[in-house]
Amino acid sequence: MKMWFLGTGAGRPSKYRNVTAMALQLPEPHCSWLLFDAGEATQHQIMSTSLKLNKLEFVFITHLHGDHIYGLPGLLSSRSFDGGITPVHLYGPAGIKRYIETIFSISATQLDYELIIHEITGDEALIFEDGRFKVEARLLEHRIPSFGYRITEKDQPGKLLVNKLIELGVEAGPLYGRLKQGQSITLADGSVVRSEEVTGPSYIGRIVTVLGDTKPCANANKLALDADLLVHEATFAAGMEEKAHEFGHCTTKEAAETAASAKAKHLVMTHFSGRYSNEDLSQLEGEAALYFEPVTAARDLLQVEVKRMSQRE
Amino acid sequence: MKMWFLGTGAGRPSKYRNVTAMALQLPEPHCSWLLFDAGEATQHQIMSTSLKLNKLEFVFITHLHGDHIYGLPGLLSSRSFDGGITPVHLYGPAGIKRYIETIFSISATQLDYELIIHEITGDEALIFEDGRFKVEARLLEHRIPSFGYRITEKDQPGKLLVNKLIELGVEAGPLYGRLKQGQSITLADGSVVRSEEVTGPSYIGRIVTVLGDTKPCANANKLALDADLLVHEATFAAGMEEKAHEFGHCTTKEAAETAASAKAKHLVMTHFSGRYSNEDLSQLEGEAALYFEPVTAARDLLQVEVKRMSQRE
Repeated sequence: MKMWFLGTGAGRPSKYRNVTAMALQLPEPHCSWLLFDAGEATQHQIMSTSLKLNKLEFVFITHLHGDHIYGLPGLLSSRSFDGGITPVHLYGPAGIKRYIETIFSISATQLDYELIIHEITGDEALIFEDGRFKVEARLLEHRIPSFGYRITEKDQPGKLLVNKLIELGVEAGPLYGRLKQGQSITLADGSVVRSEEVTGPSYIGRIVTVLGDTKPCANANKLALDADLLVHEATFAAGMEEKAHEFGHCTTKEAAETAASAKAKHLVMTHFSGRYSNEDLSQLEGEAALYFEPVTAARDLLQVEVKRMSQRE
Repeated sequence: MKMWFLGTGAGRPSKYRNVTAMALQLPEPHCSWLLFDAGEATQHQIMSTSLKLNKLEFVFITHLHGDHIYGLPGLLSSRSFDGGITPVHLYGPAGIKRYIETIFSISATQLDYELIIHEITGDEALIFEDGRFKVEARLLEHRIPSFGYRITEKDQPGKLLVNKLIELGVEAGPLYGRLKQGQSITLADGSVVRSEEVTGPSYIGRIVTVLGDTKPCANANKLALDADLLVHEATFAAGMEEKAHEFGHCTTKEAAETAASAKAKHLVMTHFSGRYSNEDLSQLEGEAALYFEPVTAARDLLQVEVKRMSQRE
């Protein structure tokens, strides 16, 4: 599972970085991916990655400011050119449906696939769940409604240790399934075989949190709790808290404080003001590192592997 | 006067070229410029030129397909970031106003300058005129309403030849002005001084024609008549006329035939299908050159000087 930082800038594209977008690429064999925001020219950035538009499965829009959505119509439209035919689910704040539908209507755009648009309100955190992961969304604090998303991979039971099963005399068949699902079984001789004895370590799902533009707030902490990867905006340098809050943003220090209090495992900061050059990013990293480590200041096209937390204890 | 080809591709961005946009940069001292279409990431392309967003004065949209308009909201929005405060006049087909207003409303975008949107119908060719140039627009033949634009620079009277005026005994003052405006004057001794005797060559304005997506049609010819620069789409290679017309487009051969019948002075072809690599462009040029020369197949970021036609005869 890998996060691509497609654009790491705030407000407008600059020579240092494009406007905001991130892609979470799921593991093989599917390699489908989830897009978070789509500033203008996100599809252009994707041309420099291994991501295929026809493998895009979900889009999560944090908020409706232009630097987060102006690349969405073109990207969705190009997915048809690229032979994308499977459905795409698009989640975002109220207004995202009218945005897409108006643009596609005026530009006479027709997609060769189904685009299912879900407007979210923040009233219920859980917005999606299947056998692979669940997605929660909570409202943050910005100048307009802005959401954070928390993707939690499902835990997976450990693999059956077949040699051990043969040794214990468990016959292949339905009993294997029950053991794999964590149940104990009783053999014909009355002996009990516990699942833990005959299964390898189970897989604990990873947690990835992507926050939209926000001031520090309680919901940011909730979403970030124990996240293996926390993507947090850090529009301004430490010390500029007043200006940051005026525009509904955070500083590097505040992003790090949220990561620390939420016990996240890795903080990646993004959405930097155009005033910061790429050379400034190591200083921004240093500011955050006083409060939380490990921390990375994202550059455009940075790839971050989301590490597995741990095995079963 | 210089035309920048910011994007020269059809449909979607490719590794060869971006989607369509062109900028006509006016002469010094103003150096303001006119934008024709704005596919996604036009503002990114502009970062590789000497064009300044705050000097943008007019936008002419040929038609509302996404590859011609998806870059417009971001570009107009970034113009505010860049300190643009002078008004911008935006011309385009019916729908362009709702497109911009809906997007700016949903994305809470506010401009620091006045954006004046003019929806054109094609009923009247003349859509703008001032002391510098006039603009005519005519409806072409595409799958949706698509316009071509013809920019005609105003002719300018020649400079006064001051040495000659002194020699003839013409006193500096109002008489100079009358001579400059082309009038003859009578001196105190009864001798007549004709304007032509005491002025240098007058300046004949240039004509630049930019056609939107179109099949061959009579209005394309009208707009292109005697143009010093004709920008014509050539989505497909010669021989693919049937497919081209099916999608409302032209081939290289047809673009050249229009240039020839309209007696244009220079044809630049653009809006190439993504099937053509940059290496293919010289072949496309060759196809057109059988029917019209000089012809250029535009590459992204190509600059074309619009040459002055002639002096006064």
